Amino acid sequence: MLSLLLLAAAPPPQAAPAASPANPVEADWHAVPDDELLVMTLATGKQVVIRLAPGFAPAHVANIRTLARARWWDDASVYRVQENWVAQWGDATEKKPLPAGITDHPAAEFEIAAFRPAVRMTKADSYSTASGITADGWPVATNGRQAWLTHCYGMVGVARDALPSTGSGAELFTPIGQSARRLDRNYTVVGRIVEGMGYLSGLPRSDAAMGVYASAAERLPIVSVRLASDMPAGDRPHFQYRSADNPRFAAAVAKRETPDAPTVGLGGAAVCDVLPTVRRTPR
Amino acid sequence: MLSLLLLAAAPPPQAAPAASPANPVEADWHAVPDDELLVMTLATGKQVVIRLAPGFAPAHVANIRTLARARWWDDASVYRVQENWVAQWGDATEKKPLPAGITDHPAAEFEIAAFRPAVRMTKADSYSTASGITADGWPVATNGRQAWLTHCYGMVGVARDALPSTGSGAELFTPIGQSARRLDRNYTVVGRIVEGMGYLSGLPRSDAAMGVYASAAERLPIVSVRLASDMPAGDRPHFQYRSADNPRFAAAVAKRETPDAPTVGLGGAAVCDVLPTVRRTPR
Repeated sequence: MLSLLLLAAAPPPQAAPAASPANPVEADWHAVPDDELLVMTLATGKQVVIRLAPGFAPAHVANIRTLARARWWDDASVYRVQENWVAQWGDATEKKPLPAGITDHPAAEFEIAAFRPAVRMTKADSYSTASGITADGWPVATNGRQAWLTHCYGMVGVARDALPSTGSGAELFTPIGQSARRLDRNYTVVGRIVEGMGYLSGLPRSDAAMGVYASAAERLPIVSVRLASDMPAGDRPHFQYRSADNPRFAAAVAKRETPDAPTVGLGGAAVCDVLPTVRRTPR
Repeated sequence: MLSLLLLAAAPPPQAAPAASPANPVEADWHAVPDDELLVMTLATGKQVVIRLAPGFAPAHVANIRTLARARWWDDASVYRVQENWVAQWGDATEKKPLPAGITDHPAAEFEIAAFRPAVRMTKADSYSTASGITADGWPVATNGRQAWLTHCYGMVGVARDALPSTGSGAELFTPIGQSARRLDRNYTVVGRIVEGMGYLSGLPRSDAAMGVYASAAERLPIVSVRLASDMPAGDRPHFQYRSADNPRFAAAVAKRETPDAPTVGLGGAAVCDVLPTVRRTPR
């Protein structure tokens, strides 16, 4: 049964079936609005679902909604998969015009004003003076003046030209290796992959420069990208986020920071290690 | 050309082609001993090369050498690939006897005595009071009394039963998502994958419990695992590590911690973000 040989991974704080002060109750789950869910269907038939973060990057999320409604990504592809770095998708040809209604060069949305998150990590990390989880489940870090979404594994960022530019939102990426925190405050973060991440992280790596697939044949075509709110009711997925502004989630984080003996900890954990679950709404 | 749409990733400190105080010189490269290189050949024909860390886990590395010389892994497989967690390989049946000469239940080698690494990270992280890179290129963290190899992406750990046990070294894993630092001091780390990591990280994820492939057909067979020192001279790979006890590497880390404007940093970086290159010895 593999019991002896398995790596006994502690379950993430969100996976909490048994009764415990750290486990969520029904009231901790809240609906993700349908227009904050982006459903990307790949040529493999698999779907990747992204939760959008309009509170952090409203102009870029507005662009993304316009691109989805224009069906702009319906002949796009995943064209870059760089080992221990990112998977990136959009228009590999760089020639496709953006649809009407796009803000072509939006101002960067790297940061918002600092605020106190619902749960704060006990220890600082190497890329911020404090970090934590917002009431609605987003990982954030701060330098005391600004706050920003952190580039954890599975977060979605906006690819761009050289600084100080930002991108339109047409080209997106997600970190597929360890967290890419050194991108914090240098790229606009627009969301988080909440289902299907393995369909991107498990793609073949390219050895070509920057991990861009050297041939069109290597690209994984994208069939469609839709806002859930634009999908027929029968096809539309519904998701819920686990809220962080309650004693259950605080207890889950505390347990991750100071695990039960005999597991050894140091009284801290990285914010990217405590992302709250976003789940399909139970039927 | 993709120039406008690419994520402009700063090159890792080790990839340093241009002349710069942060770039290595020939004297910074040192041979990895042949008996500290483990070559795993997969059924796909691809090879994964692991640099062993006998200085941190001598008993487990001794077991691994014995297992390789007994060709124990030659009918093993990669049998577990859990999204954003680990890939794990060895004997999926749990029934294969270990060869003669194995220390069946070695003492845990989670930690060694604290020491000052060649380069220290400026900021503490969430899992240690200090961290850095040893002269011979290993990432380490400390609590002031003990030091340990950190569970960065691509490091190799020993799967085990529940604490306080350790494993024999027959079942090994590597983190394939963001760094698995919360495993530090709870698992024995025996090395680092220095070539071919993408052949493990790019494998299909399993949705079964703990990411263990539900069927034997899903497993990726292992053809052979050999110490380079046991391979015929013509097949034997040679690798070099970049040493960290020199001003070039220190400058590379400093630049990663405080990047050139207009890139924004906070004067720190995680130890897992500055792992020195281990490369094939140039011909």
